[in-house]
Amino acid sequence: MPVITIKMKKTQPEKKKELIEKLTSVAAEVTHSPFSAFTVFIEEFDSDNIGVGGQPLSEKVANK
Amino acid sequence: MPVITIKMKKTQPEKKKELIEKLTSVAAEVTHSPFSAFTVFIEEFDSDNIGVGGQPLSEKVANK
Amino acid sequence: MPVITIKMKKTQPEKKKELIEKLTSVAAEVTHSPFSAFTVFIEEFDSDNIGVGGQPLSEKVANK
Amino acid sequence: MPVITIKMKKTQPEKKKELIEKLTSVAAEVTHSPFSAFTVFIEEFDSDNIGVGGQPLSEKVANK
Amino acid sequence: MPVITIKMKKTQPEKKKELIEKLTSVAAEVTHSPFSAFTVFIEEFDSDNIGVGGQPLSEKVANK
Amino acid sequence: MPVITIKMKKTQPEKKKELIEKLTSVAAEVTHSPFSAFTVFIEEFDSDNIGVGGQPLSEKVANK
Repeated sequence: MPVITIKMKKTQPEKKKELIEKLTSVAAEVTHSPFSAFTVFIEEFDSDNIGVGGQPLSEKVANK
Repeated sequence: MPVITIKMKKTQPEKKKELIEKLTSVAAEVTHSPFSAFTVFIEEFDSDNIGVGGQPLSEKVANK
Repeated sequence: MPVITIKMKKTQPEKKKELIEKLTSVAAEVTHSPFSAFTVFIEEFDSDNIGVGGQPLSEKVANK
Repeated sequence: MPVITIKMKKTQPEKKKELIEKLTSVAAEVTHSPFSAFTVFIEEFDSDNIGVGGQPLSEKVANK
Repeated sequence: MPVITIKMKKTQPEKKKELIEKLTSVAAEVTHSPFSAFTVFIEEFDSDNIGVGGQPLSEKVANK
Repeated sequence: MPVITIKMKKTQPEKKKELIEKLTSVAAEVTHSPFSAFTVFIEEFDSDNIGVGGQPLSEKVANK
């Protein structure tokens, strides 16, 4: 039943697989719950859709 | 005001219409609130973005 | 894996039980998924913490 | 640390930039927190994926 | 229909009222939507339940 | 900016501290982002407010 959601910018499939495995693994270890109990959702956002410090991430990256 | 969100894998438009109608209907019935009070969001995910038991759903489906 | 969340004002335990049963039931029926696949979270809010039309729900109720 | 999320129908990039700026600005002002503390996520939905009063937004708009 | 959620540490009722008013106001202005369309949820967390940079907020505050 | 949320039943403070540390640590490692970029929210629910397989968690636990 625990449900983990990570909101983040777009990322590669292999990173998503690794996040699912490792987030589940540490949460299962800490809570002493079986892997099978866990659901993970990776919510990817365009950098226009993420605001950091009041500015779109797309702008922050462009200004670097 | 009640807001219902369902996170799920991709699905067809007619299923989404049916989910919106039926989730609203039962919630309105149970809470004695008018249909007009309800907002529903259907959050669809690629199966790479959903983890079940520590594994991407895409892998689980592929291994069946 | 589908996860249903309903954000709403405080409600009684028996209503929550009924919401869990009926939201799961209609979603399972529409998506042809087993009951066991579903997780439901009922997020209850104080009426100070809910805004409707720019006003706290607590105020709207008090002004009725 | 405060995280603001707005769930809404699809919108133009310049609107998203303006939402990020203004939501952060008023929240920073009210909570006396620095801009840098805030993260904003704009979750855009197809109008098939939004239910209003038990009906897909796509239908409501089509029936106008 | 737009739904705004702000996740934050505990705050006073008058701040919540002000956040509801001002978040709705700027979002209504930017999206040219009526106030009545907006729902706001203020999700308050204990500082034990908020992690910033891998540390509970409660600890960060205590170490200041 | 990545924001991790875990929805779960009530748990002890030391578990929450450990979850914040370890979820941040693995996510930082996988995404090559600094710890400081991460926010974690632990959303705890009464077992009346969590549905598993169409049944309140409180009932499932009581029937064991």
